[in-house]
Amino acid sequence: MSIHNCRLPMCFETLRTPLTSAVADMSPEKSPAEPVNGEEHQFVPPLNFSMVDYGIFRSGFPDTPNFPFLKTLGLRSIIYLCPEPYPASNIEFLNANGIRLFQFGLEGSKEPFVNIPDAIIHRALEAVLDERNHPLLIHCKRGKHRTGCLVGCLRKWQNWCLSSIFDEYVRFAADKARVSDQRFVELFDISSIKQLPSTDSCS
Amino acid sequence: MSIHNCRLPMCFETLRTPLTSAVADMSPEKSPAEPVNGEEHQFVPPLNFSMVDYGIFRSGFPDTPNFPFLKTLGLRSIIYLCPEPYPASNIEFLNANGIRLFQFGLEGSKEPFVNIPDAIIHRALEAVLDERNHPLLIHCKRGKHRTGCLVGCLRKWQNWCLSSIFDEYVRFAADKARVSDQRFVELFDISSIKQLPSTDSCS
Repeated sequence: MSIHNCRLPMCFETLRTPLTSAVADMSPEKSPAEPVNGEEHQFVPPLNFSMVDYGIFRSGFPDTPNFPFLKTLGLRSIIYLCPEPYPASNIEFLNANGIRLFQFGLEGSKEPFVNIPDAIIHRALEAVLDERNHPLLIHCKRGKHRTGCLVGCLRKWQNWCLSSIFDEYVRFAADKARVSDQRFVELFDISSIKQLPSTDSCS
Repeated sequence: MSIHNCRLPMCFETLRTPLTSAVADMSPEKSPAEPVNGEEHQFVPPLNFSMVDYGIFRSGFPDTPNFPFLKTLGLRSIIYLCPEPYPASNIEFLNANGIRLFQFGLEGSKEPFVNIPDAIIHRALEAVLDERNHPLLIHCKRGKHRTGCLVGCLRKWQNWCLSSIFDEYVRFAADKARVSDQRFVELFDISSIKQLPSTDSCS
């Protein structure tokens, strides 16, 4: 059994008293929750951060103040959805923590945003579904549109009804919600999405 | 090791091709995702549904159309935050699926909503933190205020900074967000919260 699949809830494994020593880098000595200058350290999750499913998180662009929090997630991969190069400080954080970067460059056009490339979302979704990449964080700039489209396609693959997919999309996009994004998710063809075999299942 | 701690992501274990037979009731024959009358069944998550952390979900009041979806979560417990009796159809669903109900009756007053009873949230939070109850679903009526307060207190216990806690609270409460709820979370004393020992950790 891998460490990945026996992860305890992050609240238990990192932030108070670790219950197990099975999670390799979560010893009390290394916990970012230990007192700093006599005060307990506070975590700053990235903007629009949320858990999507077991081993899958989403957010806006993470910055240096978010790194101690991201460390507690034990990430293996980041799914980055913008075409711009990844900032040096973020790459340094990835390297220091053995996190693999997958970049799928989607232009962040304003509406009419009708040209989301199907093929890129298709490949990004296959990366998200590949358990060997878990735990992973999906992010773009604000965690609204590009991330919302990819998570929407994941929900479609999970057989969620469209109204629930849109309810979730709008929760993150709020007053920036785009009908064109929702139309993209509705028309996205999931029939050819491959689920790669897992190398670390419990079976 | 328990089945609970080796759960694969719900997307993998229930909705497409199960990768493992380790999850007891997730055989292809019983999967709610199997074709119904030649069409694939669609899941209807409850309003305001989201994953909070490993083994912890939140939502508005679940109704009959949500039951097939809830079944895929493999819930052990429901943390119900309203004083009204639980509906018969929901109790029947719980009994049929071996789910334990914890009721913590909080009145759903409108603002000024200054009298959220600390002691009840305290006990509810201890139930949420008890891994023996996982996976669990926290819900009230709309998944905005009472659920938002309890999740906010959980985040405080997890050492999230207040602005991130409020960012999450507002995402679910939207235009119904209450400053009094946020003040409650800010003033809530987490110092005496007990984390009960887990009986099913991997260690």
